[in-house]
Amino acid sequence: MHPLLSKKGFILDVDGVIGRGKKPIKPAISAVKKLIEMEKKVVFVSNNSTRSRRIYTRRFRDYGLEVDEDQMILTTYATAQYIKENYGKMRIFTTGEIGLIEELELAGHEIVDYEEAEMLVVGSNREINFELITKALRMCLSKKPYIATNPDRIFPSEDGPIPGTGMIIGALYWMTGRMPDCICGKPEKVIMLKALEYLGLEAKDVVVVGDQIDVDVIAGKSINAETLLVLSGVTTRDNLENMIKKYGVKPDYVLEDLSKLFD
Amino acid sequence: MHPLLSKKGFILDVDGVIGRGKKPIKPAISAVKKLIEMEKKVVFVSNNSTRSRRIYTRRFRDYGLEVDEDQMILTTYATAQYIKENYGKMRIFTTGEIGLIEELELAGHEIVDYEEAEMLVVGSNREINFELITKALRMCLSKKPYIATNPDRIFPSEDGPIPGTGMIIGALYWMTGRMPDCICGKPEKVIMLKALEYLGLEAKDVVVVGDQIDVDVIAGKSINAETLLVLSGVTTRDNLENMIKKYGVKPDYVLEDLSKLFD
Repeated sequence: MHPLLSKKGFILDVDGVIGRGKKPIKPAISAVKKLIEMEKKVVFVSNNSTRSRRIYTRRFRDYGLEVDEDQMILTTYATAQYIKENYGKMRIFTTGEIGLIEELELAGHEIVDYEEAEMLVVGSNREINFELITKALRMCLSKKPYIATNPDRIFPSEDGPIPGTGMIIGALYWMTGRMPDCICGKPEKVIMLKALEYLGLEAKDVVVVGDQIDVDVIAGKSINAETLLVLSGVTTRDNLENMIKKYGVKPDYVLEDLSKLFD
Repeated sequence: MHPLLSKKGFILDVDGVIGRGKKPIKPAISAVKKLIEMEKKVVFVSNNSTRSRRIYTRRFRDYGLEVDEDQMILTTYATAQYIKENYGKMRIFTTGEIGLIEELELAGHEIVDYEEAEMLVVGSNREINFELITKALRMCLSKKPYIATNPDRIFPSEDGPIPGTGMIIGALYWMTGRMPDCICGKPEKVIMLKALEYLGLEAKDVVVVGDQIDVDVIAGKSINAETLLVLSGVTTRDNLENMIKKYGVKPDYVLEDLSKLFD
């Protein structure tokens, strides 16, 4: 039996671990089902900043996996909760999409135009335009609190690389010298602490599983959890050594995909 | 007589020196006319990356100033010429607006979609969107030559700060770690050398006039010309000392506006 199967909780990345975009990674889906049968506690953690948990639940259903909304910690949700816990209910201007807006509103925040806003929240947006960036720029210059969902610079979409939320963070930094007061997504801690809170476990009792050393493995280490890197996404057998060298961090375990836990 | 009136040539910035957006600075316009009467050689140099010289000639006419297209070196034009001189006629993908496209085409380049392009040219665009940034990102990753019109990070528009070309440069740098192979606008040299070439003069015989220390004064120093800072734009009597400290560069002369040359 794989030593990680002694853990009580599993914090699983989504893209590259149990699916690729809309397509499930079938052996990994079966593995998740086995973990649940073994009464392991499972939570999914994703840096996606454009979807709400409601939208993600549907994607999971298409993967053949029934999960509760609560079981999914997306940066949209983690960001909305982080703001509520640290600032209270806020009037927010956001660059983000409807998925982020939905979670912000569910947490009790109000979405307003930048002139009425108390806070800037940056999330990715496939409809980004000059006006949105101008408003974010002016919010940034106003010195009001500035929170970002996730730092990802490039997202490997099905038809090639596309800008991640980091594109907007970088543009604002370049223009104003200002970085967000908090970035909620991996490899930062905020989203990982939310996952631990959901599981009701301590870091020593969980493993963090992901396909990216600079995102998932570093996030796992940030809460002192053990980490499992799977080679079903961004990291491959071929680039593994380079990635470890590049980021100066080594996962505790490496497997081809999640199902290999059961080999 | 002001000592700078002994110079043979005047390299003049536009915005903040002879106009503010569409409005002329009338005393400065009169001063330009006097310089021309004195048979001084005058050239206008602007970091504007969205207008062609044809469009700018019209603005000058509205200012009450008749100038030749040749007498205006915009980054749109300087960039198109720089590429032709250093790479030949190219198939170009650009993030820029019609004014940049017009100058690129006039120089003999062909504007194509990114998949057919040999070169990326970044210029500002008030219609910037996710698709344009994605294409620029992919061009950047392709390692093909990458030229930018100008580095300005923020442009002080009439209704408040808006992103400059630097916003796109910064976003691409953040995503890929790559900076342009050449930036043609001030404070870089390319555009200043074009201005000297037009005047047919050596740097010692000209003065570079502008309203921004980090743009115009540094550009003047880059070609070893004397510099005159006018306080009719971004720099004011109040922030002058701070600006000099911030950028570590001092203009040779400071005047309230261009007309004070004749006081």
